Amino acid sequence: MKIKTNLREARSFAPATVTNVGCGFDIMGFAMERPGDEVVVRISDNPGLRIVGISGDDGKIPFNPEKNTAGRAIKAFTESLGLKQGIELEIHKKMAVGTGLGSSAASAVAAVWALNHLLEEPLPKEQLLTFALEGEKLTSGEQIHADNVAACLYGGFIVVRSIQPLEIIELEYPQELVCGIAHPHIELHTSEMRKILRHRIELKDAVRQWGNIAALVAGLQKRDLGIIGRSLQDVIVEPVRSKVIPGYRQAKQAAMDNGALGSGISGSGPSIFALCASQKQAEKCAEAMSVVYSNMNIEVDVYVSKINKQGPVIIDSN
Amino acid sequence: MKIKTNLREARSFAPATVTNVGCGFDIMGFAMERPGDEVVVRISDNPGLRIVGISGDDGKIPFNPEKNTAGRAIKAFTESLGLKQGIELEIHKKMAVGTGLGSSAASAVAAVWALNHLLEEPLPKEQLLTFALEGEKLTSGEQIHADNVAACLYGGFIVVRSIQPLEIIELEYPQELVCGIAHPHIELHTSEMRKILRHRIELKDAVRQWGNIAALVAGLQKRDLGIIGRSLQDVIVEPVRSKVIPGYRQAKQAAMDNGALGSGISGSGPSIFALCASQKQAEKCAEAMSVVYSNMNIEVDVYVSKINKQGPVIIDSN
Repeated sequence: MKIKTNLREARSFAPATVTNVGCGFDIMGFAMERPGDEVVVRISDNPGLRIVGISGDDGKIPFNPEKNTAGRAIKAFTESLGLKQGIELEIHKKMAVGTGLGSSAASAVAAVWALNHLLEEPLPKEQLLTFALEGEKLTSGEQIHADNVAACLYGGFIVVRSIQPLEIIELEYPQELVCGIAHPHIELHTSEMRKILRHRIELKDAVRQWGNIAALVAGLQKRDLGIIGRSLQDVIVEPVRSKVIPGYRQAKQAAMDNGALGSGISGSGPSIFALCASQKQAEKCAEAMSVVYSNMNIEVDVYVSKINKQGPVIIDSN
Repeated sequence: MKIKTNLREARSFAPATVTNVGCGFDIMGFAMERPGDEVVVRISDNPGLRIVGISGDDGKIPFNPEKNTAGRAIKAFTESLGLKQGIELEIHKKMAVGTGLGSSAASAVAAVWALNHLLEEPLPKEQLLTFALEGEKLTSGEQIHADNVAACLYGGFIVVRSIQPLEIIELEYPQELVCGIAHPHIELHTSEMRKILRHRIELKDAVRQWGNIAALVAGLQKRDLGIIGRSLQDVIVEPVRSKVIPGYRQAKQAAMDNGALGSGISGSGPSIFALCASQKQAEKCAEAMSVVYSNMNIEVDVYVSKINKQGPVIIDSN
């Protein structure tokens, strides 16, 4: 596999993602149109992989490619293809790290998407997914989850049927869906947020959860907003994680009071999503959630976006 | 609400159902075209509800309406409407009791369907469902499950999103699906089969299960046989229940070896279903499963049927 002779670098954008989506812990996610991360992949005459620039991360992201999700993803990519070219990466975070919006996945996906654009024979998404997933191993430890990376790479709503073997299913969904997000500036760590979960759960709770998951998938496929709203319930994970997110209940209630179809923790938090049937509604919900945090003197970012259909894009290449 | 003046009795048929369907314990089911039960509802000048005839049950089914699923369903129906007419029921079992094919649900659904046919203003299925469910309380105790009754009444594939409040979702599915069933004559009791289940399960197993459930619903809605086949996996219930069904593993293996998309325990067993992509394949699978039991000197019935689209039907009325 070779690099195109006429290209030396590509800049890509990959979107933020909302995963778990109420009842779909570790198996469901969707992509936002914004925010998202940008990555530049540049072919270099110096062999090896180097991260030459990182912006927007407040110094939180390591330059060592082995400890960086984008770096690990590119390494898996080049090793798999036997690419010998030197590569430089620039990572431009356009959203904060540790938000529950799949920031690390977005950087990994943006990186493989940019490198893929430079190839004479680009690889299909199924293969890129496995490379981007190598990055996720850094954030979630042994228990790898593919929901962020898959939603980011495929766009739209996805289901992770299985990790081993890896199988992603793309879902239909109502085009009018718009998501409002509040990101309160509260520090949580993905690995900690996994540790607080109970390893064993009640079968009867699991049955309620999978009734809702089955219904959510059916509602999305049928484009039925009523079913989608009623099935956005989480009896397993939200009761545990919501306790460590100050203001969560009030923010969710504010979103529901303002007409959200459903609301829940995005990924492992602290961001809170409100899935809505229109732009206007999503804006109202995001505003209402932000007011909750402002009143608590907690800084908060809000995002409002339709579901992203396409996943990553190339912004520029030369 | 009144009985039509020109009708005195109706005979209905309601189908057998396959529930759980691999990964969908307590929340998923589909209806067969046959076997099924027939019930006659007759208006009588003598007040009260009487069961005047039962056939095909080997004496297993009680005549006391309070202890009979069809009797309880009719009682809930008449009490809800304030119907004062005397009613006689005949129940004709066309399948054995305790098979895991929703025999008790079929009798209850057939009964309410027949009575509904006699009403001047028949009720919608959503209301009939609540009456038929009263019967199920007899078989499954406190932990009521609606999958058999809902699949029987609605036909096709259904998801039970929630019991409280009750919400049933009808799914699309590939029209070519045909189900082969082997019913080995092994005595199991529904309530016992519930008791052997573990009350607590591993979160990681639950995640695998709901990945498969989400995928199964997506596969049915997309009419994608590949996804359907790969998602017919049960890591929670089958490992426990299969141990008390002699020959289960061999029978399932025989079905898979003969091209089934997937195979599993129907309801709480002992029947074993093999979901297939054609009539021919389903016949092969049913035959292969029956050979397993014949070789074990266990009597076995086999059924092969497309998915039943319509649920119960009126056979005759006058």
